[in-house]
Amino acid sequence: MKFTEKFYGIKEKNSILCIGLDPDPSLIPPSVLAEKNPILKFCRELVDATSDLVCGYKLNTAFFEASSGFDTMAEVREYINDALITIADAKRGDIGNTARMYAKAFFDNIGFDAITLSPYMGYDAIEPFASYKDKMSFILCLTSNPGSKDFEELLVQENTDTDLSVQPLWKSVARKVNEWNKNDNLGLVVGATKPDALQTIREITNIPLLVPGIGKQGGDIRNIIGYGGIVIPTVSRSIIYASRDKDFAEAARKKTEEFVSMLP
Amino acid sequence: MKFTEKFYGIKEKNSILCIGLDPDPSLIPPSVLAEKNPILKFCRELVDATSDLVCGYKLNTAFFEASSGFDTMAEVREYINDALITIADAKRGDIGNTARMYAKAFFDNIGFDAITLSPYMGYDAIEPFASYKDKMSFILCLTSNPGSKDFEELLVQENTDTDLSVQPLWKSVARKVNEWNKNDNLGLVVGATKPDALQTIREITNIPLLVPGIGKQGGDIRNIIGYGGIVIPTVSRSIIYASRDKDFAEAARKKTEEFVSMLP
Repeated sequence: MKFTEKFYGIKEKNSILCIGLDPDPSLIPPSVLAEKNPILKFCRELVDATSDLVCGYKLNTAFFEASSGFDTMAEVREYINDALITIADAKRGDIGNTARMYAKAFFDNIGFDAITLSPYMGYDAIEPFASYKDKMSFILCLTSNPGSKDFEELLVQENTDTDLSVQPLWKSVARKVNEWNKNDNLGLVVGATKPDALQTIREITNIPLLVPGIGKQGGDIRNIIGYGGIVIPTVSRSIIYASRDKDFAEAARKKTEEFVSMLP
Repeated sequence: MKFTEKFYGIKEKNSILCIGLDPDPSLIPPSVLAEKNPILKFCRELVDATSDLVCGYKLNTAFFEASSGFDTMAEVREYINDALITIADAKRGDIGNTARMYAKAFFDNIGFDAITLSPYMGYDAIEPFASYKDKMSFILCLTSNPGSKDFEELLVQENTDTDLSVQPLWKSVARKVNEWNKNDNLGLVVGATKPDALQTIREITNIPLLVPGIGKQGGDIRNIIGYGGIVIPTVSRSIIYASRDKDFAEAARKKTEEFVSMLP
């Protein structure tokens, strides 16, 4: 099934909210740290507590690479009901033969539905992922961090058919990803702290948007909805560390309900 | 010891050539595929055959993620003599708390001397790596693939102290990375297929350059030397797949000697 169909199905049943799983051993409740594989236990309990409320989960690869590894990431992915969406937040980007290996790792081996990618190296770093027709690739466009001003917001000149156009780099990324979207399986990552950009992007393209940066990073879920097309708000730390005690899963569920209640 | 000191030491003893380890199960000799951990065996034999000729090894993370995983990558890293340089070709790039996890994974846990990073998200995606004073971070600048024209070569406008300057994005990356280099531990990745760019970059900055794309990708090692500062030419497929039969390690050594003989 195509990612977009799967999304619309689960949106109808649950909601459009996505939870980001960034399991940090220094923030996991002590009761869980005593377990054999604390990262796995922590993620499983969060999934058990929230899976009927959300469209899916975004797994941040860095947190698995730094602690219990790829096997645990694969176990967490496996534990999540296949009816839900799973996104590898990997932000990979490399030349063709390397990109094919990353696609194999995340799509074939672990079975994620989607991945996040960096646009810097251009189309041939994206194409191997785009060739998986049922999988979705979200390309970094305008992110929620302070460093977004360093390159993403630089003004670039491009010769279009008619004229020399000047626009921020992130708009150029949005335009090109829209052009590359022949298989209807590319999307963009846009930080929730930049709601004006969502309007601008929707004037360029109607492709799916993954919107992290809600909660802890300062984005407000109410500002990122109503733009049409698929928009997936993603909340990580505000939910998964809502409590750092034994009641973390219950607290995560309560917080998830709060976010879902703000959705239309 | 700082990366640069370590590099100068091993350059004196061996050479400046770096071998890229991109172990692809579909290209590994059948005799090795019969081993328990073919990726590990393949990399070990290559290291045994070439370690007295090179400054170090660049491990392409994608190839490990797609097959035998991070544990094997760590075993290969461990197997390489600590006097040599080890680079994780990871091209990571994410916000601060995530970047810290990647730095932990590659620098603390696996013990690489250096990593490759993507500049797209700006300084706060680089800073957690730069805070490891003895470790080196090479930031993607101008790469050797066709997609480099999509964004890297776009002309960007920037207000400098004196004037509005217009330059390709990759030059803006070179300038900013040079400014960020407070700990003297940042470098750039520049593809060997763009030797003119090396000259241009050396007019901007004298920081270390990692130069992949030699051999299979079309770059000529003779064109990338003589620019001053640290320049590390990196050869992957032309060496590690010089033979796809039982004599692969011997063939890799012969090919390595050929490349080294072209160095000044």
